[in-house]
Amino acid sequence: MINKILSLLFLVFIFITESFCVNIMNTMHLMPVPAEVVSKQGKFRIDSTFCINIAGVKNKRIENGCFRILTKLAGRTGLFLKNPLPLYDVNNTTWGMHIKYSHPGKLFLGEDESYVLRITANKIELSAKTDLGVLHGLETFLQLLDTDNDGYFVPVVLINDAPRFQWRGLMIDASRHFMPVEVIKRNLDGMAMVKMNVFHWHLSDDQGFRVECKTFPKLYESGSDGFYYTQEQIKDVINYAADRGIRVIPEFDLPGHATAWFVGYPQLASAPGPYVIEREWGIFDPVFNPVNEETYKFLDAFFGEMAELFPDEYMHIGGDENNGKHWDKNPDIQDYMRKNHISDNHTLQSYFNKRLLKILSKYDKKMVGWEEILHPDMPKNIVIQSWQGEKSLIEAASKGYNCILSNGYYIDLIQPTDFHYLTDPSTSEMPLTDQQRKHILGGEATMWSEFVSPETIDSRIWPRTAAIAERLWSPFEVNDVDDMYLRLDRISYYLEELGLQHEKNYQIMLKRLSNNTDYTALKNFIDIIEPVKIYRRNDLRPQTSFTPLTRVVDAARPDQKKARDFRKLVDLFLTAKAEDQNMVNEIRFNLVSWRDNHRELLKMIQISPILNEIELLSADLSRCAIIGLEALKMIESGSKSNEEWRENSLRVLKNAGNPRGQCELMVIDAIEKLLLYSD
Amino acid sequence: MINKILSLLFLVFIFITESFCVNIMNTMHLMPVPAEVVSKQGKFRIDSTFCINIAGVKNKRIENGCFRILTKLAGRTGLFLKNPLPLYDVNNTTWGMHIKYSHPGKLFLGEDESYVLRITANKIELSAKTDLGVLHGLETFLQLLDTDNDGYFVPVVLINDAPRFQWRGLMIDASRHFMPVEVIKRNLDGMAMVKMNVFHWHLSDDQGFRVECKTFPKLYESGSDGFYYTQEQIKDVINYAADRGIRVIPEFDLPGHATAWFVGYPQLASAPGPYVIEREWGIFDPVFNPVNEETYKFLDAFFGEMAELFPDEYMHIGGDENNGKHWDKNPDIQDYMRKNHISDNHTLQSYFNKRLLKILSKYDKKMVGWEEILHPDMPKNIVIQSWQGEKSLIEAASKGYNCILSNGYYIDLIQPTDFHYLTDPSTSEMPLTDQQRKHILGGEATMWSEFVSPETIDSRIWPRTAAIAERLWSPFEVNDVDDMYLRLDRISYYLEELGLQHEKNYQIMLKRLSNNTDYTALKNFIDIIEPVKIYRRNDLRPQTSFTPLTRVVDAARPDQKKARDFRKLVDLFLTAKAEDQNMVNEIRFNLVSWRDNHRELLKMIQISPILNEIELLSADLSRCAIIGLEALKMIESGSKSNEEWRENSLRVLKNAGNPRGQCELMVIDAIEKLLLYSD
Repeated sequence: MINKILSLLFLVFIFITESFCVNIMNTMHLMPVPAEVVSKQGKFRIDSTFCINIAGVKNKRIENGCFRILTKLAGRTGLFLKNPLPLYDVNNTTWGMHIKYSHPGKLFLGEDESYVLRITANKIELSAKTDLGVLHGLETFLQLLDTDNDGYFVPVVLINDAPRFQWRGLMIDASRHFMPVEVIKRNLDGMAMVKMNVFHWHLSDDQGFRVECKTFPKLYESGSDGFYYTQEQIKDVINYAADRGIRVIPEFDLPGHATAWFVGYPQLASAPGPYVIEREWGIFDPVFNPVNEETYKFLDAFFGEMAELFPDEYMHIGGDENNGKHWDKNPDIQDYMRKNHISDNHTLQSYFNKRLLKILSKYDKKMVGWEEILHPDMPKNIVIQSWQGEKSLIEAASKGYNCILSNGYYIDLIQPTDFHYLTDPSTSEMPLTDQQRKHILGGEATMWSEFVSPETIDSRIWPRTAAIAERLWSPFEVNDVDDMYLRLDRISYYLEELGLQHEKNYQIMLKRLSNNTDYTALKNFIDIIEPVKIYRRNDLRPQTSFTPLTRVVDAARPDQKKARDFRKLVDLFLTAKAEDQNMVNEIRFNLVSWRDNHRELLKMIQISPILNEIELLSADLSRCAIIGLEALKMIESGSKSNEEWRENSLRVLKNAGNPRGQCELMVIDAIEKLLLYSD
Repeated sequence: MINKILSLLFLVFIFITESFCVNIMNTMHLMPVPAEVVSKQGKFRIDSTFCINIAGVKNKRIENGCFRILTKLAGRTGLFLKNPLPLYDVNNTTWGMHIKYSHPGKLFLGEDESYVLRITANKIELSAKTDLGVLHGLETFLQLLDTDNDGYFVPVVLINDAPRFQWRGLMIDASRHFMPVEVIKRNLDGMAMVKMNVFHWHLSDDQGFRVECKTFPKLYESGSDGFYYTQEQIKDVINYAADRGIRVIPEFDLPGHATAWFVGYPQLASAPGPYVIEREWGIFDPVFNPVNEETYKFLDAFFGEMAELFPDEYMHIGGDENNGKHWDKNPDIQDYMRKNHISDNHTLQSYFNKRLLKILSKYDKKMVGWEEILHPDMPKNIVIQSWQGEKSLIEAASKGYNCILSNGYYIDLIQPTDFHYLTDPSTSEMPLTDQQRKHILGGEATMWSEFVSPETIDSRIWPRTAAIAERLWSPFEVNDVDDMYLRLDRISYYLEELGLQHEKNYQIMLKRLSNNTDYTALKNFIDIIEPVKIYRRNDLRPQTSFTPLTRVVDAARPDQKKARDFRKLVDLFLTAKAEDQNMVNEIRFNLVSWRDNHRELLKMIQISPILNEIELLSADLSRCAIIGLEALKMIESGSKSNEEWRENSLRVLKNAGNPRGQCELMVIDAIEKLLLYSD
């Protein structure tokens, strides 16, 4: 009898667990998490008869979106779909998905992107106000694909989804290192998958002017080393993005960050030329001359041409990091400032910006700029992009400017995903009224390209940007870091499938670094190191546009999973009430492998001199692992460490915290915790 | 004393071995093997002061070539080169390479491509008649890069090199599956690395017309599903190729293989329309109407436009596989043939070809066509591409036609590298005079695209095509298959570094197939299977343009190294005089892993239904491995197998030879050899 009750209880337990699992699983698959998910029992089975049927008038964007989804569906399942292209058959009752929408969406700020995805065991309905909503729903559908013993299915579910913020962007700097069209396109694919809708294209800077300009051809002829986008390529990218519901906002950085313009047109600058393309990184003096009417004539013609090329209603004019030195030294400019009672360079820049604004308005464009363009003289119809801190965001919003947040989303700075994930553009702590808060439009991840090549850029953008995308799409309350990381692993695989190369290129980089030999020891090592953070990579000088980006620091990726898992394991172990032998074993296994890895890695360094720079770091790791093993032994045995050993060990650990070859070990803190706990 | 003598002998032995190794190593690195290599003791050291200096007038092609080589050099070594761009300084005596050439090469048949690379311990000289030769020399230089304890170096060597054949091509079919520009570009990179010089671009077929045509826009608007190259993209590809010394020859396949033309222009066809883009594979009936003067007016205008777009002196008009059925059924055509005493369709096609030739000549183009265009009526200034057998090659050459070989280089048919490698376009067995033999210009690897996508195409082209490239470049006598395979492994890594995706995409395909779980068991299995050979993949019907190319058969690659190594090991073992325990162990290790793999793979199949189709093949492998282990045991113990077991086992092995999921096991023959030997 007791047995029976126990069995019954067990079954109930299984049932609860399973239902629970179903819910968890559904959330796990989806990134970004939808606004509303009602998950039910049941499955809609996917077989080769599956088709997508679009109600209403022909719509190329939906059609292409469906074709992409059907192709991926066939790719994952191996099904020879009988209808590999979507149908337009109102009377169609075939097994599959039925799409309804009321009108084609326009690619402008605030367009409706909501959708409802209703999956029952017999039918899938995807309905939306606009085709943009349909695209988002299709991505959600594909993320729901699952398998069981009978084959492929999507779970029965009702999803009611809409974005929290209307501006969900990724900026790519194509100036400092040029990024060919295929790099841009695959990243647009990634953006579409995680429901981002603004591609901000940083197209000019000191190190290169990257757009074909017919009015002023010397801009790209002299300013790009031959690495620029033709206008046809730009149009191709814009169409590609539009097909995925993504707006393209070009940035031409003015008045600073402008050396590349002056190589061909030195007369626009505040100091006499000649100018050459800048090869190093930093803030440089060259700056437009704001008191020369020629400047505005030039910019008028220039933006006239660009306004036609780029259809979005917004245009980004940069505006950041003008050090003003060439303004200070130019007597004409000083003279003008005196005569016009312009008290400082910031005000002079606002004068410049207002003139620019007039030009943009002439061509029906609105202005976006980095936070430096915020100035009392500027009208309220510009958008402020906060990059130095949320202070400028709050200031902008409180003064009635629309604004977007990028501070906290600087993915070039190699910070962990959860840091970005927990950065919210609009928190209740911000001293803003509801009305002011509405000016916060969203945010943008920014991929500056001093230290990335086409080979490495994806590994800096993905998968971390998917977490930022979720922050900008999903409800404020969705903020469970552990759950995010679980879903991030899956999304990372989807991104890879899509063609993103954050995983793909790791292998060839390891092969190259190990001189095409077995790279196991190197991988073990790189898996737990990361590049130095924030701006420390600039400490090594000079680094130029030509400095190789194939070193260990480039193969090492941000937020290394293996190191993160170890740190978490140690935390769990040290906070666990009872000693868990599995945890101990796993910690020990890791430490032993790191202790012994150095010997193997040394052999590789012998035949691959490019690895010389990490020899000391690898030795540090080995030493620290030995300390960790000692500490673990003491924790297990309950014995105390002797003070001298502890002091020495702490010194070793501290020393191992120093970067080498611009990389740092990401498990030292965890080992230190073991040591301190053993005390 | 004896000891001392022994020590001395040992030292001498070491010395000999080492010198020997140096020589072997030099050959090993290089693919294709140069015409002449004189290898000497000594090293030229590469450090950050290394630079390239070009003597003479500015030459963009050399400059770009040098920049690419310097970038790769920096990438491999991690050196921060002080001169990352080549210099033009005649008085420069800096550490590095000095380039001399006499004139820019023209991209036409027979241009001089020779070079001399002289490396001493203090200086590198690269000299050539043309800049094309310089490019080849730069590739050779980069392949020589090596390391020792002191860092990077290139060995002292004198290389005097020139190609054996002047036409060394790769054809890519961009019609059956469209291949975006980046696929073409990365393959051009690969071609340049192995010194190929003709890119043959198959741009139209039943399944798609892939070029923007301004005169007849419906060609691509109706005939491409939106997947076509704009003229700007074509120009970009041509420039990219030219920058690498590669000619681009477009193919517009006529009069058959032409369905896609007729979707927009049915009036050109021999049977009334309407036509739709063909989705299946094979030989289809639609064919140009050769007796309609409109056809020639159209083609005149068409080739007029294309002749301007494609600068090469040659144009490929296809001409293959016209089944003539629509000609037979068209009364006008039959009438015309009667009136003009045209006895058969082949002669009618020659009439068509002669009209075409007149059009091409008008635009200063020479004609290339598949062997079917060979006909007594055709003049001698056309080039014949032999694809069905070397018979047509011999016939063409003996009749005084220039010709190239593709039969034996059909890389879409998944044959092993050595088969292609040992296919020679010009052997002494061919019944040709020396004069006739001169008409054999070279050969072309052909990548037909029924069963490849942008994700898989590289794995069908590379690395096997590097061996074909060597066949076409290196002296006839270079034909050691084992040595070729050794060098192929290295070249495969260089190709991967260059951006080719034959290795890169394997991983994501395995992940997708295993539903993003640990794919070890699947990899173990796929590593020793290959897709079915020749045209057997067509047996499964219907397969269309939309059939997924993500199945196991697509992940499996031609000429699997692991299977090849096992077969070789078994051969070595069975022919070895004495029993070698290492060999036995290795064979056993493999067999055990295959025996046990099925259990693991079954678990994966449970969660990834796309794998269902290979379950039986995996079971077969397991059964065969058990047989192999039994046989091995008997060989070791010297015991005889009993007849019934042997019969049964042979039956199992025979059955395991059947393909499943369009894949076949590549180790069955070797296991059968073990079994038969044990007898």
